[in-house]
Amino acid sequence: MRALYFDGISLKFQATYPSPAVKRGEAIIRVLKAGICHTDLEIIKGYMGFRGVPGHEFVGIVEEAPSEFWPGKRVAGEINLPCGQCSFCQTGQARHCPHRQVLGIKDKDGVFADYVTLPEENLHLIPESLSDEEAVFIEPLAAALRVLEQLMSLVGANKNTWRLCVLGDGKLGLLVAQVLKANFPEVVCQGKHPVNLAILASRGIKTYLVGEKIDERFDVVVEATGRKEGFSQAISLVLPEGIVFLKSTIQSDYSYNLSPVVVDEIKIWGSRCGPFDQAIDWLVKKRVDVLELIEAEYDLEDVEKALTRASQPGALKVIFNISSLPGRKAEKNSDK
Amino acid sequence: MRALYFDGISLKFQATYPSPAVKRGEAIIRVLKAGICHTDLEIIKGYMGFRGVPGHEFVGIVEEAPSEFWPGKRVAGEINLPCGQCSFCQTGQARHCPHRQVLGIKDKDGVFADYVTLPEENLHLIPESLSDEEAVFIEPLAAALRVLEQLMSLVGANKNTWRLCVLGDGKLGLLVAQVLKANFPEVVCQGKHPVNLAILASRGIKTYLVGEKIDERFDVVVEATGRKEGFSQAISLVLPEGIVFLKSTIQSDYSYNLSPVVVDEIKIWGSRCGPFDQAIDWLVKKRVDVLELIEAEYDLEDVEKALTRASQPGALKVIFNISSLPGRKAEKNSDK
Repeated sequence: MRALYFDGISLKFQATYPSPAVKRGEAIIRVLKAGICHTDLEIIKGYMGFRGVPGHEFVGIVEEAPSEFWPGKRVAGEINLPCGQCSFCQTGQARHCPHRQVLGIKDKDGVFADYVTLPEENLHLIPESLSDEEAVFIEPLAAALRVLEQLMSLVGANKNTWRLCVLGDGKLGLLVAQVLKANFPEVVCQGKHPVNLAILASRGIKTYLVGEKIDERFDVVVEATGRKEGFSQAISLVLPEGIVFLKSTIQSDYSYNLSPVVVDEIKIWGSRCGPFDQAIDWLVKKRVDVLELIEAEYDLEDVEKALTRASQPGALKVIFNISSLPGRKAEKNSDK
Repeated sequence: MRALYFDGISLKFQATYPSPAVKRGEAIIRVLKAGICHTDLEIIKGYMGFRGVPGHEFVGIVEEAPSEFWPGKRVAGEINLPCGQCSFCQTGQARHCPHRQVLGIKDKDGVFADYVTLPEENLHLIPESLSDEEAVFIEPLAAALRVLEQLMSLVGANKNTWRLCVLGDGKLGLLVAQVLKANFPEVVCQGKHPVNLAILASRGIKTYLVGEKIDERFDVVVEATGRKEGFSQAISLVLPEGIVFLKSTIQSDYSYNLSPVVVDEIKIWGSRCGPFDQAIDWLVKKRVDVLELIEAEYDLEDVEKALTRASQPGALKVIFNISSLPGRKAEKNSDK
């Protein structure tokens, strides 16, 4: 099959990469489209020491699966493959299984390829009303919704009056800002790219360009800049006893002063993957608009162009068009 | 009066430092004893850019006060002096008032002196059953209890099964470990000083010397090492979705990698000052033993010896004996 392979040095197109071996319980999925995420760009700089096929945001058609339900269905897939055996897996914390594989990130080939395998339980059926392009956003939208899920798990707080700030107007920042705005009246976003910020401004989100002075502090700051400096800026913008969410996974060390965290009793909360079901529901209900977040689409063979585009400052979602063939056992999705 | 003055370079004894001017609402307190805290040692390295008389842990006798109740009473005092006017002060967050003075730390002379002034509302009456030495520990014990207060504010967690780890066997680490052990069966502490760790071992706390491998991870890790490296170690010891409390205020920047915080969705929570009333109650009920945490006592004139002793690795509480004279309006405390 065709695939993009990362050998530790560069990501290259291969026309004859071996098709994935199917393990017990797994489905084979033909990838229709796949999105390039900031994490993918970090991976090809060395993050996680990954070797293989990257990519974890996708929409595909199930070709084979253990149960009859799935073949022919259009799906997205959760990216964590827990071991099922360890104490984490046995106590409901499978997403933090230390032995887990992570699709296109850790010990498991990802979706920048014609085919990918995933355990059946990782699959989510995509409603017919969603286009393939929208479906590519299920995984990143779920990650954005995770911030909301974590915020809502806090009790006793007077959330209605909270003021929130999102740092970063990249792909994830724009999703997080939209998700928060749907729940909180006061959301601002600071970014570097007027075109990106305009998407948020049209939704009533107050925007600041980097360099513009923000003359207030916030109950909640979400760091989604993907840059090392984002953390210190988040700390400087959050109110005492406020919350800073960290969304950026950054490969390298960086120098920080943590004493303001102590003095102001700030809470910092890492935030990673989120609820796919909710993401699908939000997309169906058009609670966020993701289509205007598409930067460009490329064929798999055009990997260099695609990466160059995706690496440009302010680039939005770059998508690989991988297959447009109907499924081998193609049939119309039966969800209504 | 006698005082220790920090001019930005060194902390020096002065025999004729001006007595503090009394502001409206303030009491004048003659200091009996004062403790040297890790923060004081950071301050004389430049932390907070403080100039003046440091010191914020003390027991004293009120000499004059606006209300009749206080003169002659033995007191400890809260260290934050909020402005009373700003939006923080008006909304119950006075302890985070951005304009606050902090006793011996920010814009307010502290207790390494014969006399100190504090607003009457900052004072706490010390029960007769507590010795002056014990009373010196009210402020640091309150800071240790703050961790417990923050932990208990989390709901929905199955706290009974939590395993907790304290990093650092200095003054604060030993208090935090004791406080946590009083509430949780499984507490371990890692430190550098066998003598200090022995105090905890005698209370059923499992101890590790730095360098010994800790073969488990914890629901809660408290960073109380006072060292820059403590943060990274705390992150490596906490379970996914676990909590790291930061107690150390450290002057300088240091290089950290925050991506494990994101991937493991760790919560980091700064923790500063705590409840004096609870600290007094714990001391009265002997729920912690603080007397064995005293390293040495010195006269104010012996500042150099005292600082040398307090700066030694593993040093416990060094106390200044400042006054043993009865109060000008001395009378027996009437609390029963």
